[in-house]
Amino acid sequence: MKQVEVGIIMGSSSDAPIMRQAIEVLEKFGIGYEFNVVSAHRSPQRMFDYAATAEERGLKIIIAGAGGAAHLPGMVAAITTLPVVGVPIKSSNSLDGWDSLLSIVQMPGDIPVATVGVNGARNAGLLAVQMLGISNSELRQKLAAMKKENNDKVAKQNETLDRS
Amino acid sequence: MKQVEVGIIMGSSSDAPIMRQAIEVLEKFGIGYEFNVVSAHRSPQRMFDYAATAEERGLKIIIAGAGGAAHLPGMVAAITTLPVVGVPIKSSNSLDGWDSLLSIVQMPGDIPVATVGVNGARNAGLLAVQMLGISNSELRQKLAAMKKENNDKVAKQNETLDRS
Amino acid sequence: MKQVEVGIIMGSSSDAPIMRQAIEVLEKFGIGYEFNVVSAHRSPQRMFDYAATAEERGLKIIIAGAGGAAHLPGMVAAITTLPVVGVPIKSSNSLDGWDSLLSIVQMPGDIPVATVGVNGARNAGLLAVQMLGISNSELRQKLAAMKKENNDKVAKQNETLDRS
Amino acid sequence: MKQVEVGIIMGSSSDAPIMRQAIEVLEKFGIGYEFNVVSAHRSPQRMFDYAATAEERGLKIIIAGAGGAAHLPGMVAAITTLPVVGVPIKSSNSLDGWDSLLSIVQMPGDIPVATVGVNGARNAGLLAVQMLGISNSELRQKLAAMKKENNDKVAKQNETLDRS
Amino acid sequence: MKQVEVGIIMGSSSDAPIMRQAIEVLEKFGIGYEFNVVSAHRSPQRMFDYAATAEERGLKIIIAGAGGAAHLPGMVAAITTLPVVGVPIKSSNSLDGWDSLLSIVQMPGDIPVATVGVNGARNAGLLAVQMLGISNSELRQKLAAMKKENNDKVAKQNETLDRS
Amino acid sequence: MKQVEVGIIMGSSSDAPIMRQAIEVLEKFGIGYEFNVVSAHRSPQRMFDYAATAEERGLKIIIAGAGGAAHLPGMVAAITTLPVVGVPIKSSNSLDGWDSLLSIVQMPGDIPVATVGVNGARNAGLLAVQMLGISNSELRQKLAAMKKENNDKVAKQNETLDRS
Amino acid sequence: MKQVEVGIIMGSSSDAPIMRQAIEVLEKFGIGYEFNVVSAHRSPQRMFDYAATAEERGLKIIIAGAGGAAHLPGMVAAITTLPVVGVPIKSSNSLDGWDSLLSIVQMPGDIPVATVGVNGARNAGLLAVQMLGISNSELRQKLAAMKKENNDKVAKQNETLDRS
Amino acid sequence: MKQVEVGIIMGSSSDAPIMRQAIEVLEKFGIGYEFNVVSAHRSPQRMFDYAATAEERGLKIIIAGAGGAAHLPGMVAAITTLPVVGVPIKSSNSLDGWDSLLSIVQMPGDIPVATVGVNGARNAGLLAVQMLGISNSELRQKLAAMKKENNDKVAKQNETLDRS
Repeated sequence: MKQVEVGIIMGSSSDAPIMRQAIEVLEKFGIGYEFNVVSAHRSPQRMFDYAATAEERGLKIIIAGAGGAAHLPGMVAAITTLPVVGVPIKSSNSLDGWDSLLSIVQMPGDIPVATVGVNGARNAGLLAVQMLGISNSELRQKLAAMKKENNDKVAKQNETLDRS
Repeated sequence: MKQVEVGIIMGSSSDAPIMRQAIEVLEKFGIGYEFNVVSAHRSPQRMFDYAATAEERGLKIIIAGAGGAAHLPGMVAAITTLPVVGVPIKSSNSLDGWDSLLSIVQMPGDIPVATVGVNGARNAGLLAVQMLGISNSELRQKLAAMKKENNDKVAKQNETLDRS
Repeated sequence: MKQVEVGIIMGSSSDAPIMRQAIEVLEKFGIGYEFNVVSAHRSPQRMFDYAATAEERGLKIIIAGAGGAAHLPGMVAAITTLPVVGVPIKSSNSLDGWDSLLSIVQMPGDIPVATVGVNGARNAGLLAVQMLGISNSELRQKLAAMKKENNDKVAKQNETLDRS
Repeated sequence: MKQVEVGIIMGSSSDAPIMRQAIEVLEKFGIGYEFNVVSAHRSPQRMFDYAATAEERGLKIIIAGAGGAAHLPGMVAAITTLPVVGVPIKSSNSLDGWDSLLSIVQMPGDIPVATVGVNGARNAGLLAVQMLGISNSELRQKLAAMKKENNDKVAKQNETLDRS
Repeated sequence: MKQVEVGIIMGSSSDAPIMRQAIEVLEKFGIGYEFNVVSAHRSPQRMFDYAATAEERGLKIIIAGAGGAAHLPGMVAAITTLPVVGVPIKSSNSLDGWDSLLSIVQMPGDIPVATVGVNGARNAGLLAVQMLGISNSELRQKLAAMKKENNDKVAKQNETLDRS
Repeated sequence: MKQVEVGIIMGSSSDAPIMRQAIEVLEKFGIGYEFNVVSAHRSPQRMFDYAATAEERGLKIIIAGAGGAAHLPGMVAAITTLPVVGVPIKSSNSLDGWDSLLSIVQMPGDIPVATVGVNGARNAGLLAVQMLGISNSELRQKLAAMKKENNDKVAKQNETLDRS
Repeated sequence: MKQVEVGIIMGSSSDAPIMRQAIEVLEKFGIGYEFNVVSAHRSPQRMFDYAATAEERGLKIIIAGAGGAAHLPGMVAAITTLPVVGVPIKSSNSLDGWDSLLSIVQMPGDIPVATVGVNGARNAGLLAVQMLGISNSELRQKLAAMKKENNDKVAKQNETLDRS
Repeated sequence: MKQVEVGIIMGSSSDAPIMRQAIEVLEKFGIGYEFNVVSAHRSPQRMFDYAATAEERGLKIIIAGAGGAAHLPGMVAAITTLPVVGVPIKSSNSLDGWDSLLSIVQMPGDIPVATVGVNGARNAGLLAVQMLGISNSELRQKLAAMKKENNDKVAKQNETLDRS
């Protein structure tokens, strides 16, 4: 069984469809993960404990998604020293994603959150892979292969593009 | 010595010039307060403890000011059952106050923050007075007197207005 | 019959589906309320009278919802000394809620409106409960119980989360 | 002495430097006006009375300027049947004028406010002149003369433009 | 047959469903109008001629609606001395109405456009009625009656409001 | 004497400091230009004539700068078939440039304006050079040389960068 | 067979429905074009090569469309000296087009992108025609004819407008 | 001499005062870095080469800052498989930082940029440290010590806070 290296958390189970896009990436790259609902607002102690024990439980990176006044990524980053990737989610109570984005990216000095685009959980997963790849050349090779695949897909799209 | 009923906290001492405007109001109405730096991001445990013990320490209302990705008011509201008044601050790292405002006001269901305007600490103080006034007719009378004063000032402004 | 402590008003009956979320909360906490259409723009005298007599009629808190150029919460706050909770509504004539939010939250000094998130009537109801809880320990215990329930729901969501 | 036809009001005497630009225009066109501080928030009864008696006092148009959550123009328009011209002011507590603009222009159906640009009091004065010009051909001729002057100034600017 | 006093124009026939709301108001108040497509961008000479001859053709007010980079109201105002009411339209190529609103309201000094809310053609019609009412007490009485009707409707809404 | 190929116009002489940046570029590339104040709002007939005669007077490109509700570029584009480059200017009456930008770039179908960044007159000049370069290989070579110079400047900046 | 003068590129084949509107224009004016997917992000070398060889392959203008953080137009403009027309696309990952627009239009000095409105590919095609028309009087005549057609359509719309 | 693990690049030497804040952090943590001007727009080949050779030159992370239409972080991320941290800079040509932020954070799928707040270079440096800390427990201990220091500073601020 794979060691869990990435913790994926979200403020509500309604964020799961977006956040699963991070899982898809991690599975593709063979990286162990755990997936949980950890709400900064509804379960602050759970959030606190999750962040405080993350490193000792072996996590290396935390991916946190939230919408509206999205405090989860920043609060987790306040507690752990692990890198935290923030995913702003355009949730039902969000002002078209602007609140989620600004609540996550505009962190004060000394408490960074590595923020991706609105609903960008797939990219959050890839950032985690890239971070793990710093000391794992195999992952870097897989990332390079994915880049090549994407590049080839562009060529494919051109072959089949309707130009009539 | 007055009983401390309102806790005023802010994310950084650089927010003090704004937050003191809440103090001015509380002093005018003779309400006991305490004033502290409690950063959600730099001192999360202090924030946690502050919020968790607020009620038992006799606080009745918490006023919290923060700028940028402003998580302090919402996180305190997540932990305490006391009413929390949030003051968005246009701090040096803020995007003209938009991030502070949205990070504070757009809270998810069940975790309200009573948000005032950007840099509106004076109004935060008054909201606290109004809340205490619910069960204190003397405060309500003082509030009514202040309303009357403000109304009279408008009359005064008209007397001295340069219409030439 | 319960004493009416909270007045819920809205600019139009079309705002009722949102504003009823405040009622649900008040009923859950056993708090007496009244529910009315009071338009600042279409019925200014009614608005004026409503606000001016609120305290003497025994109201303790007013919750006011409105959309677009939303003047109801601020105007009521200008007239009464009771705390006013403002609910910005994303109505049909609103610019995605931005106008409603700014019209309500950006009040000038001395006239606070306790603003919640866009369409956040549920939180407005809870703010009212919290304010009443300042002098009512039973309400505070119920609020604490609700926090615990919400926390437990997060645990439940984790038990049933599809991690496959 | 000239009959007062235009009432100019503003939420605070601090708005006077902007609002005087409307006066300049009215004086240039020989139109009688009155100039007052009438705050919707600090002096709601005065605002109410001002608007309710405007027509019977002989006013034909009201120009109202306000900043932040700017309710004065819309509230006056709710009470009087006279045309109301609204001037959004970028005041000290305004979010760069966005709140003032949206609070004034986004009025609900049946309560129009003729809104000009941010700080556009000069144009508010001109709108009043144009409205009075509907039944006053002399004013229309003066307006046409002003248009011609402005056009001539463009020619002048071209004569003196530094093209080196 | 009624004399045509108000010219309603729009940049495209696709704006007609919105602009007809101005017609409804004018018909209700018995005011003669004309209704035309006059595009500043596709038919600039027609726009020019329309504006330049408006006064001599007996028009007293022009209502102009447009979306996106909405130049029609401002260009007409540049040419005629009649009051121009601008209606920002949330058209298919508009950025949620923001471009339409700013293109119309933010006019430079000396060229006012009386701007109403996004898609606010009904209010544009009412503004025209109010302007004509300046020298027509019958119209003012009808406007007062409409205000009373609207006020009564609020009372009616309260009678039928579902409070269960 | 050089043939005038590019007409540079602006809504007001106060825009000249920005618009002269386009002149600098044209002079550097040896392209003849003319420079005038042509206000769509204050001198609509002059604007109309300028645009209508531009092609027959030998102009090949028009660069138009304006601020606030900026109609000049779009109106000129409505009248001429020449390419029009629009420069949004952050003028004194502009909402931080947002109104200028949206008023210029969001043109309806069939009336393009080639928009550059806010205050981007230098780039407007370069666009004109690029357009003339389509049928002028010498200009293209000069453009390539400028690109090389800019690239070399980056190398220079690296040589002198303070890395201590 | 027509010489290819305009290169149309887009970041993804999902942008094709929008970008084909540029093709329609070019075909109407009888201008040769090529149409390809060239992603700055997924196929940077292809983008680089496309831009670097564009001039030698006989292209005269490049039209580039992209959404979200839209780097394609600006990067192509960084590499080629040909004029580049940028089309901001409101794609699925875009914040209502704001990110696409700002990423394309706000280019730094010396690297212009001729930006059209959001989803304005039709206007991008017309800009290309206008640029080619600088040295092609036949194209200019066709553009004038199109302007006349559009003007006539306005007349037609007026003939059939439902004024009842 | 320390091995260079982090490459810090910026679009212009005018961004250096901001970007040096990343250097301060790296020096504090004893991490080798290089610091260069690499403009995506003025030196695209240099940017390309920098990104393409970064991994083989031993870099582990790239920090890239840019303003306005900020393409540098995203383009570097398109070319390398290393993690890229993006710093939106509020430069002279930026629309208050909004363009910089959106151009960097809203990247399409598969090309992540770890974005920090506007002008947040200090946090970019810390993110790099956190990423290196994944496989370096000494760095993690230093990060924990810095957290503790920051926490202690809050206590210090409280000791010296002027509460009079």
